[in-house]
Amino acid sequence: MDGHRISLLGTGLIGDFYTMTLHGQRGRDEVRVVYSRSEGRGAAFKERWGIAETTTDLAAAVNHPDTDVVIVALPNFLHEEAIGLAAKAGKAVLCTKPLGRTAEEARRMLAMVEDAGVFAGYLEDLVYTPKTLKAVAAVQNGAIGDVTWARSRETHPGPHSAWFWDGRLTGGGPIIDLGCHCIEIIRNFVGKGNRPVEVMCHTDTLVHPIADEDNAIALIRFESGAIGQFEVSWTFRGGMDLRDEVAGTHGTIWLNHFLRTGFEMFTAGGAGDGYVAEKAETSAGWLFPVGDEVSELGYVDMFTDMFRSLDAGTPPQETFYDGYVVNAVMDACYRSAKTRAWEPVEMEWRGGTTPRIAKRPEVYEGLTVIKREILPDGRHKLILKDESSGDFSDRVVAGS
Amino acid sequence: MDGHRISLLGTGLIGDFYTMTLHGQRGRDEVRVVYSRSEGRGAAFKERWGIAETTTDLAAAVNHPDTDVVIVALPNFLHEEAIGLAAKAGKAVLCTKPLGRTAEEARRMLAMVEDAGVFAGYLEDLVYTPKTLKAVAAVQNGAIGDVTWARSRETHPGPHSAWFWDGRLTGGGPIIDLGCHCIEIIRNFVGKGNRPVEVMCHTDTLVHPIADEDNAIALIRFESGAIGQFEVSWTFRGGMDLRDEVAGTHGTIWLNHFLRTGFEMFTAGGAGDGYVAEKAETSAGWLFPVGDEVSELGYVDMFTDMFRSLDAGTPPQETFYDGYVVNAVMDACYRSAKTRAWEPVEMEWRGGTTPRIAKRPEVYEGLTVIKREILPDGRHKLILKDESSGDFSDRVVAGS
Amino acid sequence: MDGHRISLLGTGLIGDFYTMTLHGQRGRDEVRVVYSRSEGRGAAFKERWGIAETTTDLAAAVNHPDTDVVIVALPNFLHEEAIGLAAKAGKAVLCTKPLGRTAEEARRMLAMVEDAGVFAGYLEDLVYTPKTLKAVAAVQNGAIGDVTWARSRETHPGPHSAWFWDGRLTGGGPIIDLGCHCIEIIRNFVGKGNRPVEVMCHTDTLVHPIADEDNAIALIRFESGAIGQFEVSWTFRGGMDLRDEVAGTHGTIWLNHFLRTGFEMFTAGGAGDGYVAEKAETSAGWLFPVGDEVSELGYVDMFTDMFRSLDAGTPPQETFYDGYVVNAVMDACYRSAKTRAWEPVEMEWRGGTTPRIAKRPEVYEGLTVIKREILPDGRHKLILKDESSGDFSDRVVAGS
Amino acid sequence: MDGHRISLLGTGLIGDFYTMTLHGQRGRDEVRVVYSRSEGRGAAFKERWGIAETTTDLAAAVNHPDTDVVIVALPNFLHEEAIGLAAKAGKAVLCTKPLGRTAEEARRMLAMVEDAGVFAGYLEDLVYTPKTLKAVAAVQNGAIGDVTWARSRETHPGPHSAWFWDGRLTGGGPIIDLGCHCIEIIRNFVGKGNRPVEVMCHTDTLVHPIADEDNAIALIRFESGAIGQFEVSWTFRGGMDLRDEVAGTHGTIWLNHFLRTGFEMFTAGGAGDGYVAEKAETSAGWLFPVGDEVSELGYVDMFTDMFRSLDAGTPPQETFYDGYVVNAVMDACYRSAKTRAWEPVEMEWRGGTTPRIAKRPEVYEGLTVIKREILPDGRHKLILKDESSGDFSDRVVAGS
Repeated sequence: MDGHRISLLGTGLIGDFYTMTLHGQRGRDEVRVVYSRSEGRGAAFKERWGIAETTTDLAAAVNHPDTDVVIVALPNFLHEEAIGLAAKAGKAVLCTKPLGRTAEEARRMLAMVEDAGVFAGYLEDLVYTPKTLKAVAAVQNGAIGDVTWARSRETHPGPHSAWFWDGRLTGGGPIIDLGCHCIEIIRNFVGKGNRPVEVMCHTDTLVHPIADEDNAIALIRFESGAIGQFEVSWTFRGGMDLRDEVAGTHGTIWLNHFLRTGFEMFTAGGAGDGYVAEKAETSAGWLFPVGDEVSELGYVDMFTDMFRSLDAGTPPQETFYDGYVVNAVMDACYRSAKTRAWEPVEMEWRGGTTPRIAKRPEVYEGLTVIKREILPDGRHKLILKDESSGDFSDRVVAGS
Repeated sequence: MDGHRISLLGTGLIGDFYTMTLHGQRGRDEVRVVYSRSEGRGAAFKERWGIAETTTDLAAAVNHPDTDVVIVALPNFLHEEAIGLAAKAGKAVLCTKPLGRTAEEARRMLAMVEDAGVFAGYLEDLVYTPKTLKAVAAVQNGAIGDVTWARSRETHPGPHSAWFWDGRLTGGGPIIDLGCHCIEIIRNFVGKGNRPVEVMCHTDTLVHPIADEDNAIALIRFESGAIGQFEVSWTFRGGMDLRDEVAGTHGTIWLNHFLRTGFEMFTAGGAGDGYVAEKAETSAGWLFPVGDEVSELGYVDMFTDMFRSLDAGTPPQETFYDGYVVNAVMDACYRSAKTRAWEPVEMEWRGGTTPRIAKRPEVYEGLTVIKREILPDGRHKLILKDESSGDFSDRVVAGS
Repeated sequence: MDGHRISLLGTGLIGDFYTMTLHGQRGRDEVRVVYSRSEGRGAAFKERWGIAETTTDLAAAVNHPDTDVVIVALPNFLHEEAIGLAAKAGKAVLCTKPLGRTAEEARRMLAMVEDAGVFAGYLEDLVYTPKTLKAVAAVQNGAIGDVTWARSRETHPGPHSAWFWDGRLTGGGPIIDLGCHCIEIIRNFVGKGNRPVEVMCHTDTLVHPIADEDNAIALIRFESGAIGQFEVSWTFRGGMDLRDEVAGTHGTIWLNHFLRTGFEMFTAGGAGDGYVAEKAETSAGWLFPVGDEVSELGYVDMFTDMFRSLDAGTPPQETFYDGYVVNAVMDACYRSAKTRAWEPVEMEWRGGTTPRIAKRPEVYEGLTVIKREILPDGRHKLILKDESSGDFSDRVVAGS
Repeated sequence: MDGHRISLLGTGLIGDFYTMTLHGQRGRDEVRVVYSRSEGRGAAFKERWGIAETTTDLAAAVNHPDTDVVIVALPNFLHEEAIGLAAKAGKAVLCTKPLGRTAEEARRMLAMVEDAGVFAGYLEDLVYTPKTLKAVAAVQNGAIGDVTWARSRETHPGPHSAWFWDGRLTGGGPIIDLGCHCIEIIRNFVGKGNRPVEVMCHTDTLVHPIADEDNAIALIRFESGAIGQFEVSWTFRGGMDLRDEVAGTHGTIWLNHFLRTGFEMFTAGGAGDGYVAEKAETSAGWLFPVGDEVSELGYVDMFTDMFRSLDAGTPPQETFYDGYVVNAVMDACYRSAKTRAWEPVEMEWRGGTTPRIAKRPEVYEGLTVIKREILPDGRHKLILKDESSGDFSDRVVAGS
């Protein structure tokens, strides 16, 4: 029942969430050393989470003799260097989202870990929320039939840290920040073997005085015919809106991860506790906290999968290859936003082929059954098409 | 306090809803004669609603000496003939949605009523739901700032009548059937004077064995930069999903018109009452009825606006010109679905011009303020941009 | 299609709601004269609603030669005088809730209208909300089996007008103000012929410096064994909480009439429109408006029932007798709160008898079936009781 | 970072939930041996959860040389014997809810662990749900002011195992099974030092052919004046209804733990996966699964608190004394149901005294301010009382 000893790189909000998860509850894994670019932030983080050591030397953190796992929780532009060091050190490496700023960068990081033969996990937490895991399992069990459409929406009023706003360091705006979540959620629902063929994306900068987009909407057409749709924004008002909707030929799924989860509080204000939830906008009036954020946002199940897979010698649910595919879709989004046309997703595809969603029309007395409805009296109403004339009619028949 | 006497043309589901509204509650208006293509359906309708007369002669119904208003509740391909007769008779005419099968057809009907100088109203009920009316008023009062995005979604498992499935008679699939609602809802939220400039639309036929689309998603770019987004489907499972979401620079609106309105019922089944709500799929398990369908779907407020406007000699909220604009947007959708490119909305525009959503960045000590957050201790955290270097930084300052 | 001409007595909030309903939409009925104790309020009301006349002479208003219906929208302590005048005038009379301050007072008013033979309606609007009407109809159709429990909750931060707080004028606190609604809602769900036998009530004055209760909870035991439960408060924070829950042997109903009806709005504040909904507490942050308040609160359907019944010569759904029963239950509540014991509901009962909710246990191989569950594999699991030994066991059997 | 080795007593549903929690995620604690009365159930449980040993010898399980913690997950009538053995063995003991069948029994178990000086924890999971923990913390921080009322509701269609239905083995019906949860949730909200003074309870057996109650409602009056209210049932239809509502002088909290948590799924049925959630009634139509049941139901945070407290040598949040208080309240409920009167809660009270909820009326120009409302124009409306005359009036004044 031994756990892992971790070199954590980065002391931002995501470093806090990761450590809160790893050190929370009765976990057996431990952050052993934390790297920060700033001595002060490193010391505060060490103190905050009871970590043995902190350092401002990236290589020293990665190569720490007591750790076997490196977690990269750095700004996007620092991922490649960190992963290179971890691969060289022969350590397991887990990298926060997005993997790269571009597919090309992600491709290089994928090659690094594959060449070094180290375990590598892509820390896409929102795929691991308990609701998403259960919903994806239900879809895989056929509960909603073939998926025809998956919408993932992540919007909030904008990030808390300055570097997020600098496209040179990140690769873009909310597509890079939030779209990466949505794309991987969608892939889990439509099936990871279902190739994202092409993308149509619209972006605009409507509110913030920045060069990158602050709003984007994209459609992703998959090989099966299913459509993925994501909406991301840094201008949403009201908190953090995290919702997914999935439509299938036999059912529907609606997930709400943040603003409406069964926890509602009205406070006339004036009282202590400021923190409601990540990106909450107010601390009075009607508030909608979440119960256990690190569980609800998927961090708990994510690290469990990562460490179990590492121990078992199997790939985790989310790999660097998945991170690379996400980057390839985002690249296509940015190209499409510029050309204003459908753009192919360009990448090395390892996922095989997926057949088109099948239509299997029923035939009734030589006519195609368009729809069958059950009437209150138990009889069935058929909408029928005569394929030769193209005419439609309806007929009521005895129930089967 | 005199009401109006009405020639109703058509005895389908929509004729029932209209008459239920007009004859419901304490209304002063009355359906005097009803026209049906089928003698049997006409007789049943007359009986059902206590109407004085029925006829299978379209012109006789329109020209009935005791009526002053003609309501067109016929399949799409019959609108033009009926409106022509009403215009010729010099009677007020109210036409169900969509106005035409194409913008060209709608343009001709618009000309007919304008040439004849008769009152003409476009029966777009979903713009008149009490929630929508109140939400649009809130938006007009500035409650959510400038609208940046409006999503309207209308999906269900497919229409009940055969003619709906025949694109020759209707003009298309769910874009024509449901998209017309969404487009006009979106226009009301972004402002009717805000020109719909261009459209990107994706359609597919995924489930039903028909020639027209059974699923469609479209983006509409308005002159202000606002994006309208609609999702329509005849393959949704779970009932009728009618939801609108509006994002603004200072707020957010979420409307749910049907499946989650505060009425929830679990029934183990076996009991009498089959009817739950329009397009409900089951009559056991958890059900989500609506209270008063004709009120919740906007019919009550719609007819009130129509008759009050008629009496006052002013145009109603929804005119034939609006119906024509909707058709023009739908035409652009169908073109875009074919060319797979953004397509301009081609029409005669009467709405003036709308400025681009304004960004008015605050400046702090020579730096652009990207975002201002209030911290729990009352101080403000600023994300700042140095426009000369392009660098971002954050700073915590005293609250204002 | 003639409507009614009304003498409206009272110009408070409820007078506004009534007139908004009567003059709203396409109604054929009209407030002809309005009485106010204050000349100024009367004049403002006349202006606001376009009423022909106003007066400060109660008898003159009641006896106005052009009216055939009197609506009593006065504070509780003025009901008896007004109803006496209407009865004497031989006019139909509709009285707002509660009918009396006590059952004795209500009994006298009931006698007045019965002796005079005039049509009398009890304006209990919340029984007529579209949701409640549909839910009650579902219950009557057997959708949830026998009702075992009905909870009605009405709470808000306290009334807007001074007289409401004066128990001498009203008869009490929120039991009189709000409990009257709850009791009649409960009666509609458990069946009006189901005698309310006894009551247990707890009251307290926790927040407001008043002599009457500001919080109360009561249990009402009905002849069938069903329990009615109401919770009323003038200290609730967050708006107006109007919810009903009904449990039956075969189903469940949950109604939310106000704070969660599918209309959600976040506004950063600063914008015009102050009015959100009755008793809303804030005008910024997350708000929950209702669509059409007079429809959602039942006023529209209530007046339709009243006038249709008047025209048809049949009693309305809610009669003065119902108002009297409600007063009798409230009397028992106040007695119980004092004695802290179950108190019988003392009244003249006209409703007949209702059998006890029936248990019809299934027998399986000589054992009583306590519960039957369907397992995922289709088999049934039985919980069985041996009545001779009193021992319980479980057994899995083939599905039927 | 060493964990604990556990002797688990019992292999029912609750044993599964406990082990799923302990062996789930990255836990460091381990069930080392499991006791079952049945060899077959023990073997299956051992296999299911990868446990080293199973035994049918209770003392052997408790005294197992490799374990330091005993978890009692047995039917109620077996708690005392098991706890006696654990106390004698000097091991830490954690006991499932309810602690005893009566307060007297609970008192004896409390004495056993106190006399033996062993660590003892009361496994009241629903107090530990992430939502409840956060809500209780918010209440303790003053977010809703003084708590005036707390409602806890737990209802479902009845337990799955035969022994639950036998009052001789359990101590009663749903009060014992579910009310114990509600009482402790309520105590956490009103404050554990707030003495439950007296209880009024109504019970009935409406549906199931059993001797104990299948429905109960109770009011608990606390020393501060706050009222606890619980509703428990074994006849609810629609799944498992777990909701809490808390009203305070400055705010409101609504928690929904099960049926409406932001996870909604419609399935036309026919597909594999039968399991939706504990006590779900259907596997088609609209379903409402929960994400991670063991987290959402509090098991994760409960064991974390237990083991952390054990390691730290501090009492856990929920102690045997709490279990004893809960039993004392339940005893009073059963007495009250019989006498049909308010009954005192008889127990050894260790919690000190709590002052009555304070009213601090504002005075305005010599008059008592009953209520202060902010008008849309910013002015304030005061409802005022003249204490000498008892008269009420309202006045509009400038906003402060």
